[in-house]
Parts: sequence; C-alpha cells; structure tokens
Amino acid sequence: MAENTLKIIPLGGMGEIGKNMTAVEYRGKIVVVDCGLAFPRDEMLGIDLVLPDISFLRERRDDVLAFLITHGHEDHFGALPYVLRDINVPVYASRLTLAFAKSKLDEHGLLKVVEMNEVNDDSVVDLAPFTVRFCAVSHSVPDALAIIIETAEGRIVFSGDYKFDHTPIDGRTTDVNKLARLGQEGVLALLGDSTNIESEGSTGSESQVGQAFHRIFADSDGRVLMACFSSHIHRIQQAIQIAHVHGRKFAVAGRSMIKNVNIARNLGYLRIPENAQIKLTDIDKYRPDELLILTTGSQGEPLSALSRMAWDDHPQVELQPGDTVVISARPVPGNEVSVMDTVNRLLRSGAKVIYGQASGVHVSGHASREDQRMLLNLLNPRYFVPAHGEYRHQYLHRELAREAGLPDDHIFLLDNGDVLEFNAESAAVTSKVTAGMMFVDGLQIGGAEHVVLRERQQLSGDGILIAVVTVSVQTGEAVAPPELVARGFLYDEEHEHDLLAEARDDLVTRLRELTAEHVTGQRLLREDVHDTLATFIYRRTKREPLIMPIVVEV
Amino acid sequence: MAENTLKIIPLGGMGEIGKNMTAVEYRGKIVVVDCGLAFPRDEMLGIDLVLPDISFLRERRDDVLAFLITHGHEDHFGALPYVLRDINVPVYASRLTLAFAKSKLDEHGLLKVVEMNEVNDDSVVDLAPFTVRFCAVSHSVPDALAIIIETAEGRIVFSGDYKFDHTPIDGRTTDVNKLARLGQEGVLALLGDSTNIESEGSTGSESQVGQAFHRIFADSDGRVLMACFSSHIHRIQQAIQIAHVHGRKFAVAGRSMIKNVNIARNLGYLRIPENAQIKLTDIDKYRPDELLILTTGSQGEPLSALSRMAWDDHPQVELQPGDTVVISARPVPGNEVSVMDTVNRLLRSGAKVIYGQASGVHVSGHASREDQRMLLNLLNPRYFVPAHGEYRHQYLHRELAREAGLPDDHIFLLDNGDVLEFNAESAAVTSKVTAGMMFVDGLQIGGAEHVVLRERQQLSGDGILIAVVTVSVQTGEAVAPPELVARGFLYDEEHEHDLLAEARDDLVTRLRELTAEHVTGQRLLREDVHDTLATFIYRRTKREPLIMPIVVEV
Repeated sequence: MAENTLKIIPLGGMGEIGKNMTAVEYRGKIVVVDCGLAFPRDEMLGIDLVLPDISFLRERRDDVLAFLITHGHEDHFGALPYVLRDINVPVYASRLTLAFAKSKLDEHGLLKVVEMNEVNDDSVVDLAPFTVRFCAVSHSVPDALAIIIETAEGRIVFSGDYKFDHTPIDGRTTDVNKLARLGQEGVLALLGDSTNIESEGSTGSESQVGQAFHRIFADSDGRVLMACFSSHIHRIQQAIQIAHVHGRKFAVAGRSMIKNVNIARNLGYLRIPENAQIKLTDIDKYRPDELLILTTGSQGEPLSALSRMAWDDHPQVELQPGDTVVISARPVPGNEVSVMDTVNRLLRSGAKVIYGQASGVHVSGHASREDQRMLLNLLNPRYFVPAHGEYRHQYLHRELAREAGLPDDHIFLLDNGDVLEFNAESAAVTSKVTAGMMFVDGLQIGGAEHVVLRERQQLSGDGILIAVVTVSVQTGEAVAPPELVARGFLYDEEHEHDLLAEARDDLVTRLRELTAEHVTGQRLLREDVHDTLATFIYRRTKREPLIMPIVVEV
Repeated sequence: MAENTLKIIPLGGMGEIGKNMTAVEYRGKIVVVDCGLAFPRDEMLGIDLVLPDISFLRERRDDVLAFLITHGHEDHFGALPYVLRDINVPVYASRLTLAFAKSKLDEHGLLKVVEMNEVNDDSVVDLAPFTVRFCAVSHSVPDALAIIIETAEGRIVFSGDYKFDHTPIDGRTTDVNKLARLGQEGVLALLGDSTNIESEGSTGSESQVGQAFHRIFADSDGRVLMACFSSHIHRIQQAIQIAHVHGRKFAVAGRSMIKNVNIARNLGYLRIPENAQIKLTDIDKYRPDELLILTTGSQGEPLSALSRMAWDDHPQVELQPGDTVVISARPVPGNEVSVMDTVNRLLRSGAKVIYGQASGVHVSGHASREDQRMLLNLLNPRYFVPAHGEYRHQYLHRELAREAGLPDDHIFLLDNGDVLEFNAESAAVTSKVTAGMMFVDGLQIGGAEHVVLRERQQLSGDGILIAVVTVSVQTGEAVAPPELVARGFLYDEEHEHDLLAEARDDLVTRLRELTAEHVTGQRLLREDVHDTLATFIYRRTKREPLIMPIVVEV
C-alpha cells in the first residue's frame, strides 16, 4: 500500500444496517465520514448499543483530522459520544445535525471538551490535504448533506442517506444542479445509498403524506395520536400544520419527541402556529376533536410512550374509543413483531389504528431504484461503491450500476475494513484493517465475540446449575455433601428437587471415587464435578444448563 | 350457562398466530376442531414449542368425543402428540393430514395407542349429539378440509385455512357448490379464516407460481435450489414437474422435506416422473443445468439445510457461482431478519437469489378480502366468528363482516377461553374457561408464566453473580472469606476481577456487622448477602445480574 495514495476505508455500515463510518485517507491524513451506532439484534443478549470497532482510528489517532457527519440520525452520528472520548478531533455537521449531536454529547458530559463546527451546503472546509464541500440532500430528517471530499487525486462524493424530493416541506430540495456540476467537473468515486434498492421507481415526496393526514384529521371525531421517528421534523411539521388547519392543538409525548421538537423549534426548523402547542397534562381541558398528540413508539419500542399507552401504563394519556392512532413509519427490519403487537394492543383499547403501506401515512426517506439511477447519471462517477444497507442491497446496487454502464472493475462491493486504494489508472482493494463491532452494555464497552455473550446465550436457554463442593484445605477431600442450586432450569419444582437430589447422590459417589483415587486440586476437582453433572443432567433432561462448580476450601 | 345449549369455546388460535384449537360443546359432549402448536417468540427464552393450555379439556376428559383436524399444518395438528397423551380420543382427518400427523405421533412413540380415522369430503361422522361433515378447500397443503358440525340447534362451519383456487395443481378446488348448498340449508355460525384480511382482492392461484418457475428454469444455466415449506406438496409438485420439462432431475435436502416428499409420493399426492429423483449424494454426477435441489429453510431456520448451505456447512451441497436459489415462501412474522440474513449470505456465496413478492415465486394459501366476502356470501351465516390470525386480523375481519351486512350482535370477536353460547334467539359470551399457553422445553411441559422464564430473562441480560458464604454450623458465623463468581456479567476480566474483590471486601465488612449483631440463620444471611451485593453491583455498574447467595455450613 503506497503511503501517499488516496484510500477509502469503510469501518462500519457495509453489509449491515447502522453504525455507518468511513475513513478517507490521503497523504497519511484521515477524515472520517459519519460516526454512527447500530441497535443490537435479538441474539445480542443484554447489549444496549453496537459501535464500530475503531482500532484502526486509534492506531492512527494522530493522523485523524475530523469527523464529517452527513445527517442527524443515530446510525450516522450516534457513536460520537463514545468515539470522541478516544479520538477527540473536530466535528463538522449542519446546524440541526450538530444540535442533535450536541444534545447527545451533553448527556455524556462531553459537550465542553469537543470542537463542533457548523457547516452548510455552501461551506468549504480546508482540512489539508483534503478540501471538504457539501451538497443539500432531502432525507427523513432536515438539513441532511452529501459530503464531497476533494484531493489532488480526485473527488469523492458520499451521498449520505438521500432522496429526490421536488416538493419538500422546507423547500430545500436535493441540489441536483450542484450534483450535475460536480458530475461535469469529474467525480472519482461515489459512495451511494443502497438502502431502498428493492423499491422500483422513485420515492414519493414527503408532502404526499400530508394528503393522508388531511383526510385523517377531517374524518376523525376523536383525538388523533401520531407516532413517528422523533427526528422526522418534516413529518411532525406537517402533522402540526394540518392539525392546526383542522382546529386541533397538539401535545407531545415521549422523551426524545419532546427533546427534538424543542431543538427544532428553537432553531427554526419547526414552525409552530401561535398557541398551537399545549402541555400533555392539559389535554383533558380540550375536546377530543381539538387534539393531536405526537408520540414516540412508531417501532413498538417497549418503553416508548405509545407502547405505554397501548398497555394502559401511560401517566397522562389513557386511550379511549374514538381515538385514532396513526403509525407514520415503516417497521425497521426486526421490529415487525413489536410494531404489530402494538397495533393489536391499540385496537383492543378501542382506538382506530392507521398503519401499513396502503394507508399513505408514510413515505421513505431513501432513494428508490430510479433515483439511484438518476444520481449515477448526474455524478457520472469513475468508480462506484454501494453504501449503507445489508449485503443484498449493496449487491443489487452493484447490478444497477452495471446496467447503468459502469465497468465491473469500477464497482466495489466493500466489506468493513477493506482498503480501497486509487491509483492514476485503476482502483483495487489492497489490504484490510481491523473492523467489526464493539458493544455498549451499561457502563462497559466490550468486544463482540466475548465469552460473556456465549454465557448469556447458554444461561438464557437452559439456565444454570451451581454445585458447591466443600473440601478440606489439608486433605483436599470433600468434607460436606455438595450443595446443588439451579436457576432458570426446570419448571416443575418438585421434579427439580428430586432430580437435584439424585444428581447430588451421583456426585457424592463420584467424589468418593476421587478421594479413593487421591485426585485433589481445585482445578481437577472442578472439571470432574462439571463433567459428572453435565452427563447426568443431559441424560435425564436433554438440557444443557451452564454448570458452575465451585470448590470451597475450609 | 345452560347445560344443554350449543357452545363454541376457542382454546387457542384467537388473537395469535398458531396453536389453533376450538371446542364445540352440546348436550354436555365436546368435539375439538384442530390441535395445533405455535413456535416460541423471541422473548420465550429456551422454549421449544408452545401448546394450548388444555385444562378445560382435562376437566371434561370424559365428555370429549374426538379431535377433528382441518389440515396438515403444525399450527393445526402439531399439539396432538402432547394432548393425546392426556386425552386419548379418536382423531379424524383427511388422508394426507392423517399421514403427517401419524408421522409425528410415531416420533413420540404414540402411534399404536391412538385411534386415527381417515375421512374425506364425502364422509359423515356420527358423534352423537354431533354429526360431522367435511368440505374440500384449497390451501397451501393438499387435502385440506372445512369442517361442518351439525347439531339439533344448528350447523357450525369451520372454514379452516382456505383460499379459492380455481386452477389448483391437483384439480381439487374449494367446493363452492357444497358451500352454497350449506348456505341455502342454513348456517348458524361460521368461524372464518382471518389471516389475510390485510390483502385486498383475491388470492392468486397456486398455478401462477408455475409461470415464474418456468422462466427461472429456462433462464438458469446452473443448478436451481428451491426452498419452500416441506408440507407445500403442490409447490413441490410444480417445481419437480417444471424442472422435468426443462431437463432437470431433482434431489431433496432437509429432514422434513425428505420425510414429507416420501409420504406424499407414497400416498399418490406427489407424482414424480420416472427417474426424475436422484440422491443428494449423487448430484455431482450431473451437470449443474440438469439439477433441481428441493430444500427446507425458507424461513431462515438456523439449522435448516438451506441455512447450512448458506453458511457453507452442508455435508452434500456446496454453493457455487451459477447456482440460483429460489425462496418460494413469505417470511412468517418474526422471521424477516433470519430470512434476509440467509439471502445476504447466499448472495455472498455467489449464488443468484430470487425472493420477495415481486419475484412471483410465492402465492399465499389464505383467502384475501374478496375471498372472505365470497365465503360470507356463500354461507350466509347467522353468526360470524373471525378465526386465526392476530387480533388486528380478526378485528378487521369483523369490520368486513359488518360491511357485508351482519348485525353487530351477530359477530363475535372472541378471546381464547371465551364461551360463546347459542340460544334460540341470540348468542352471547356467557362465561370463560381456562385458556393460555403451555411451554415445551426439552422433555418438560410447563406453564407460561413460570418463574423459570423470568430467571432466564434476567440471566440473559446481565448474567449471574454467585456468592458462597461458609458459616460454622455451631455458631452461624462466617468461617472463611466469601467466594464470588460471575458468569455472563462483565466484559473486562481484569475489571471484573477488581470489582469482585471490592465486592468481597464490602461483603466481609457486612458479615462482620452481622456477626456483631448476632444475625444468624441461613435465610436471613442469604437475604442480607443478596441485598448487600445487589446494592454494591448496581451502584458500580448500573447492571442487575441475578444474585445468587449460597450459604454452606461446615
């Protein structure tokens, strides 16, 4: 790997949903686009958050110049509070993105120790040997930017998450003229958003959702409750505005919704008609048809405001017949069951529930296939890297780029850690750096392959069986009958009691044999107790609890 | 509740996917329609299967006359091996359904002790005071039946799972003429399949899938692998037949696929062209374009043949570029992520993967909204009970029945355990019997709300911390320093070691206080050790492992 060539090194976000992070290296210096987190999959027991493994950035700490954030979603900025502790370099982002990020850093007590720089689509940031420019793009959060990194070797465009919305709520369209100009001037490489490759045609405009909202507000005699992502300020803006037209005031439920509505209002991203907002504690002072309640919980998150309402456990909002609940979002993969649990539960409470694709209450924030073709056409990049989304999304995006005319050896399906290196004539993956997952679990951060997870997996399936064996410190021989205790193991307590009594007898016999054979020593004893019990228990129950021998010397 | 009235008592399958079971009671006698199981949800840690709670049937054991099974899917017959042990009464089902059920009973060693009776759509079974008739319906398994239970009070029709397929693979259509005749003669109550209420229009014919298969076999130069439900004999028939047309032989992978193909072939439900089937171990003797491999794994099940192929762990089939994998099924709710994991992984192996709704390789086996309207129109029931599916499906099915003209008090949205009682003039839910879940976990069967599950939940999240305190049997005082051991708890071993050392010091101090206060007794000691540790650990880690104090007396 030549020292001074231009390289793209994804450290997260390839072949997976979330934790987007890509390093660009040139002449030994590095800038990093995005610093996102992911949410744990079901099998990641007890894990709170998933972060990119930043070993590579740690090793190169002195060469890292900045983090450049495309937009204000946690899968693009959410790892900042963890990563900046280690690699404290300036962050560049748009005004709203920065506000969301600052709010997170504040929660971690890091606000004062990091340098946060506001940029907009006209900004030019000199981070020699890089020059960084930006381009407005539409997405499901306002103020999103594509990022253009210019070097003497050429220009790299990160689309970030984007769509083409020609009638956006804030009038800020994806700047197709700038993209076309960049294309004419020449783009070395594009990293394009693959997320919606499975959708034919073009993604609809956010303003389409407003039509559905108008119908819902007109048709509902009772309260309207609307759940969406709390960062989806345009969705929230439409709901508030259309509610206002229909004579409804609004209240806000859910921690992140309250926070983001405040941030967006204070910065002018959310325009609220005078006296339109009321306190959630005041909703009973209004008639049902005068009310809109904006709430978190569109993904069926168990502790969200909507879930608590659905399970009749919300301190302020008790659902009632006549209520209409609008779920203005699509379930993120993996959340399908919890969202539908919430719908089922809401219906049981007597509310009407409007959900699902046919209802028109949601459009995506990501480019569909026609849009992806448009971006390739506008930018006409020499090299193309499908980015974001699972492997199949990037795979299908590669096929689409092929159909658009890019030669096979100009399209790179990268894995996290791949080093894509550009030379005057060609590009190739030349090496690999460490990349993977780090887990946040309470106050600790640890590696993804850790034994702790395997232990939790085993504990979760068949529980644990603890055997305490007391031996003489002098002779090493058992001096009291072993104690057996189980947790999360058998259902039938009586049966468990009998089985453990038998297991104990079995163990006593074995301990006598060991004494006769003069087998002593904590470790040998522990191993033998483990194997004796494991064999007995499996034979009798076909289960494999975690077996935990403890030898006490007295 | 009058002793002799006619009652419908769902014991499973209401407001949930799976474990379908409905009792019909008349003049003190009971017949049960279906005896299904469900698969555990993610939060049911370590659970293998979910069964209906049959306490009600146990109490009324002497009154139960028979189980009547609509079709050969496990959510309709899979609980038989567990339920018949307890309530050994005759089972009635169609030929193929019976064959699938017998195969399961055989695995449990129960084949010889239960009475299995074959019926067909012409059968009339006298189970006084009931007369039971049957009606052919199309579904995603052959030989499915609607069940008609006739009593002096009127006729109840169980649609079972059904669709209207006018061009079915086996020529056996849903018998609309018989349904119309029943409607003319009079139907007291219909229990109709709600599963696909969210689909507009009519469900497509199974033969549509054949068109997609023809294109795929014609376009593929390499092997074709097709995954579908192993009971979907019509899907399998089409694949085999169309492969044959395109000069491909077939082999079968996956235990249940092998078993069901054998059963269906032996009974004549699957017609196999001469020499068309080859052994899986012989596939390397053929050119790739001469091969079709039928496989399990359409739901991304981790141990299925397709998953093992995808993860390069199948003994006979190694995927290669040029292979085409067809996933001819829709993910069951909750399986979305594992199916897409499999797709991602298959693509990485170089195979082409055909999946998803737009690909045309799957049609549903359940009636859509127009079909559901058709059934109501044909049968014209006096009372209607939406059945199968989650709460929202039954809820929406109720709305559809209302639109079809049924009065509100003639439609019943039942929960499991509800007793729907019919009188000459009206019907009403008059009482409730025990209903719920039983869990199969290895060799044991237990209640759903059991403490074992809560323990597993806690163990899976934060692990376990075991504290062994050794006390003198004479004085009750601690005679050795406590031993602390953790599993599934902290990532950083060094940190864990230090933390546990501190916790032990904390505990030693507390034990000294207890001695000074003359607190003795195993139970008091255990509680105190638990609370001391819990407080210390939470303060330091914000985690709540299961804390397990063990007091050893020496």
